[in-house]
Amino acid sequence: MERSQYSSRLLDNAVNQFATLPGIGRRTALRLVLHLLREDQNDVLQFVDAVRAVRSDICYCKICNNISDNEVCDICANAERDHRTICVVENIRDVMAIENTHQYRGVYHVLGGVISPMDGIGPDDLNISSLENRLISGEADEVILALSTTLEGDTTNLYLYKRLDKYGVNITTIARGVAVGDELEYADEVTLGRSIVNRVPFNKTIAV
Amino acid sequence: MERSQYSSRLLDNAVNQFATLPGIGRRTALRLVLHLLREDQNDVLQFVDAVRAVRSDICYCKICNNISDNEVCDICANAERDHRTICVVENIRDVMAIENTHQYRGVYHVLGGVISPMDGIGPDDLNISSLENRLISGEADEVILALSTTLEGDTTNLYLYKRLDKYGVNITTIARGVAVGDELEYADEVTLGRSIVNRVPFNKTIAV
Repeated sequence: MERSQYSSRLLDNAVNQFATLPGIGRRTALRLVLHLLREDQNDVLQFVDAVRAVRSDICYCKICNNISDNEVCDICANAERDHRTICVVENIRDVMAIENTHQYRGVYHVLGGVISPMDGIGPDDLNISSLENRLISGEADEVILALSTTLEGDTTNLYLYKRLDKYGVNITTIARGVAVGDELEYADEVTLGRSIVNRVPFNKTIAV
Repeated sequence: MERSQYSSRLLDNAVNQFATLPGIGRRTALRLVLHLLREDQNDVLQFVDAVRAVRSDICYCKICNNISDNEVCDICANAERDHRTICVVENIRDVMAIENTHQYRGVYHVLGGVISPMDGIGPDDLNISSLENRLISGEADEVILALSTTLEGDTTNLYLYKRLDKYGVNITTIARGVAVGDELEYADEVTLGRSIVNRVPFNKTIAV
């Protein structure tokens, strides 16, 4: 048996497992494990069950690919939302970020990534066909492209635009510009340039 | 059903559970859970099993109360260690800290805390009787008190000294002084004062 660092192989195991999580070093991992050791056994079992369940029982919405407890996620199942506007995002974190603004009442489509030849990710690796099918069935009037402004994001935007334009829906993209509260002089040139080119009528600006 | 923050109750649950850990906020918890979601299911099960096992299967050494996978911990079971020197510490983290120095070859006794009337912890709540029994059976020549220099630690030191002195063992305490590498001018007065009062012959100093 390999000599364990902490006189207990079980402890060592648990610390090693925690240390595989992003941003958690061995020192933090040890602190977390020692915390769990002091906890009530039922609390630890609850923790363990919740972690097991989130990986084993969670599924992906068959409409938009958002994570969900059921076949269809809460957003797609919500009749009060605007189902004729589809916001295309890269991943579920982007859905959360947009939901947290409380400014969007439409639905989503999660691509699961962006086109990235460097990483070997092509259009067929993303959930594009299912998005296309939603447009073919005529369920939407507008598609908002909300991908990141990286080389890969822009490539994907262009690809999606070319592939989806023929379905006669409005294809828009989220506004880029100087962030609310930022000083002009500290904004980068590309962002500031875009915010001037894409200026909007003053009476359309909404205070968030 | 309560409306969950993340459109998935399972995700919400797991995030809440991670957020109960010390130093982990909801944002970090979400990052960890999303990481686990992307991991292979077997890796997640290994993580879950390790955490469950560390709380359910770990036991405490019947000699020194250190955590252990067996009835007797690796340190107490190690015949190469000096079983006639017992270092008394507050908790298992202190055992780890001393072990990491690689300077101590004796055995330990984990008190499980210090006397703290404010927190309702008296001598009977600590593993003092088992320490006393180890001295009564004559298994030790020296007891090193390595408790923290707080009011509670000093109280416990004094209590242990009074209770254990009659068994005819050497009772020592770890040296306090200016840390190796620290500048004298920045050391606090109490520490610097103690390091002068408890000065040692130069030829006894060991470079660590």
